[in-house]
Amino acid sequence: MTTQKEQWERAKKLLPGGVNSSTRLNRAIGTPFYVSHGNGSRITGIDGNEYVDMCCAHGAGLLGNAHPAIDEAMKKAAEIGYVNALETVYHEELAAYVINTVACADKVRFCSSGSEATMHLIRACRGYTGKNKIIRIEGHFHGYHEMIYIGGQPPQSEFQRNRINPYIESAGIPEQFAELIIPIPYNDKEALEEAIRNHADETALLILEPVNFNCAGIRADEDYLKLVRKLTAENNIILFFDEIQSAYKKSFQAAQNELGVIPDVTTIGKSIGGGLPLSAFCGKKEVMDCFSPVGNVQHSGTFNAHLIPVLAGLAFMKEASSPYFYPLLQKIGDQLYTGLEKIIAENDLNMVVPGFGARFNILIGRKTPAKRYEETFCHDNQVFLGILKKCFEKGVYFHDYGGGPAHHGFSIQHTPGDISFVLNTLKEVLLVSRNYF
Amino acid sequence: MTTQKEQWERAKKLLPGGVNSSTRLNRAIGTPFYVSHGNGSRITGIDGNEYVDMCCAHGAGLLGNAHPAIDEAMKKAAEIGYVNALETVYHEELAAYVINTVACADKVRFCSSGSEATMHLIRACRGYTGKNKIIRIEGHFHGYHEMIYIGGQPPQSEFQRNRINPYIESAGIPEQFAELIIPIPYNDKEALEEAIRNHADETALLILEPVNFNCAGIRADEDYLKLVRKLTAENNIILFFDEIQSAYKKSFQAAQNELGVIPDVTTIGKSIGGGLPLSAFCGKKEVMDCFSPVGNVQHSGTFNAHLIPVLAGLAFMKEASSPYFYPLLQKIGDQLYTGLEKIIAENDLNMVVPGFGARFNILIGRKTPAKRYEETFCHDNQVFLGILKKCFEKGVYFHDYGGGPAHHGFSIQHTPGDISFVLNTLKEVLLVSRNYF
Repeated sequence: MTTQKEQWERAKKLLPGGVNSSTRLNRAIGTPFYVSHGNGSRITGIDGNEYVDMCCAHGAGLLGNAHPAIDEAMKKAAEIGYVNALETVYHEELAAYVINTVACADKVRFCSSGSEATMHLIRACRGYTGKNKIIRIEGHFHGYHEMIYIGGQPPQSEFQRNRINPYIESAGIPEQFAELIIPIPYNDKEALEEAIRNHADETALLILEPVNFNCAGIRADEDYLKLVRKLTAENNIILFFDEIQSAYKKSFQAAQNELGVIPDVTTIGKSIGGGLPLSAFCGKKEVMDCFSPVGNVQHSGTFNAHLIPVLAGLAFMKEASSPYFYPLLQKIGDQLYTGLEKIIAENDLNMVVPGFGARFNILIGRKTPAKRYEETFCHDNQVFLGILKKCFEKGVYFHDYGGGPAHHGFSIQHTPGDISFVLNTLKEVLLVSRNYF
Repeated sequence: MTTQKEQWERAKKLLPGGVNSSTRLNRAIGTPFYVSHGNGSRITGIDGNEYVDMCCAHGAGLLGNAHPAIDEAMKKAAEIGYVNALETVYHEELAAYVINTVACADKVRFCSSGSEATMHLIRACRGYTGKNKIIRIEGHFHGYHEMIYIGGQPPQSEFQRNRINPYIESAGIPEQFAELIIPIPYNDKEALEEAIRNHADETALLILEPVNFNCAGIRADEDYLKLVRKLTAENNIILFFDEIQSAYKKSFQAAQNELGVIPDVTTIGKSIGGGLPLSAFCGKKEVMDCFSPVGNVQHSGTFNAHLIPVLAGLAFMKEASSPYFYPLLQKIGDQLYTGLEKIIAENDLNMVVPGFGARFNILIGRKTPAKRYEETFCHDNQVFLGILKKCFEKGVYFHDYGGGPAHHGFSIQHTPGDISFVLNTLKEVLLVSRNYF
């Protein structure tokens, strides 16, 4: 058996940091988590240790590992001969599922990653409006690319400057790109009104996560979202909901359907490919038809909407639209969230765990959900890493996103026994860590 | 049976243009090509008509359709439970293949699409050098994103302005991004020297296709490439070969190995996933280690290096490194290229078909290979679309890229009979079209 550390040493020689994604180094466990296989709710490390999987592929794995529906999709792909870069009836069938379940979607396109989805849809918003700037919300995340990986999650030391000089979140992004980004705080009507008053003429879109899974699960006040909808509509600014993470997580629809605020365009992920590389972007006909060959905005790529993820996506849609699916998911969530609330209340823990369907955030250092990004600075990353580390040692895998109050979740294959085990583990760990947060 | 046109009408209601990629509208046949299945060298339309596949997924399908090695990879993926967003030993194994076969590769990372690969590697070049501008070659193509989809292939009417105001190739890309692009003609030493003299201090990278598959298959003069290597090295400019299309097409290595000019960094595609969504970027250790968590350049994403494409990639590598593979590929190519040259010579056709391994370009309107982009303006897109249309009617599928002199190809599963059929079809079609080019 190889240890995690041995495998890391080997992999580091070939892959920068030993991984194919910068965030796959799990700082809580001190190495990336190298796995040998997964089954249902369980995932087994390269060292033979088994864990309850509370990462679930960052939210892509709503079906859990080794789901039989994916086996069937793979068989179908084999029958079709794995044809690629050409369209089939399955693409149309999958498109219909999205259009029927996402309120703003007149038309849709598929691509591989969430970053590709936000990049292409931002391009269409610019093409449609003829304007270039982007109003974005602090704390929200919309992909790792030059269009939008700016001003979202500045470190606390840079936070004060973020609204003047938006913080560039990666080296290698030219400084002048930050001139196109206008960061505002969430749930702040005055800041919203001011940004629109000052920048409406040059702003193509306002982008947000309706559930801010990427930072503490912050939810919008209802009247705030309504004001966002009203002001963007009045000022020819496209309202863009990034639902890569929130769509299909609570019910067989997007969060916008639940919230009753309908944007103009939306990106959809992360679970729609049944765990395979698939994302989508959709919206009103007039914006979507900016894409060539109808309009003159380019969206192309050999691997867009590859047959195998498309078939896995259909498998996901069929499974998720079955009558058993969301009631079961809700039941699992009820057990988890009720259990967690009980642990927090009975022990008066200084933390809060906002959940939305199959995903939730853990924010330590305060007892009520945050309303804006800077209210999450109470979360001590080092303490939180310690908590995740202890959970790992006891057999529960939480992914670490640099220690921040990011998202975790479960799949449809998590059993009541799994959830009890997770609750018991968390209780034990939180009680020994409670003095640090 | 549904006709192509009926399916297009249905799909257009849900997907902009009825497709998931702008370039999937095949203007030669007047609709996208909707398929029901593929098998080996053959692909069957939704209407039941069978074609010899000379698109081969734009070069991703070097194994052809329904290859048994991919079946095996899918079985393995099922055994591992389709785990996603976590690393395995298979990632390391695939990385070793790339490092052992691509001359410049000390380290490598994998992602889904070619566009993702060039985008991330450009970011690393900027992070490494602290400079932002890009010298690029006219006619070359490096992905559909804001960093580089500028100044590559201006229409003839815009060509004269391209070196002053680089042509933005899609609506929705902000004009100021063009300020970072410096387009130069291929094979022009003086233009190269001038660009470097004027812009060395602000230029992060010089990017090129060593075989310009995306426009007429233009090859670099040997002394030109050597000068590119020398001047970039002398001026702290990273030399970036985009081998998305050229790697593994002629032999079990990258084109750089064959040409003997070794860049600093390279993107690798399109066939390395065995037809599944996989691309790679690699290069010298010091540049690659700019990526976080070693350096501070971000490269992350849930679907990067997904297990299924990684296993299909290993299947490709094992197949392609078998002793039979490239000799057989060469034999197929010899039959095709010798046959085509004979047809051209015997009939004195005004065209040229430069090939490199399993891919080739068709350029009409001149008898010798072009040396730079503007020399391809002799190619009449409308006439060429007519040629591809007639081939389609006779059972050979060539993809259309707007009628331009782009690339076509064959797979390891193409038989001598397939190639004879393609040659006979092309001969027949070219002889009735010869008066138009």
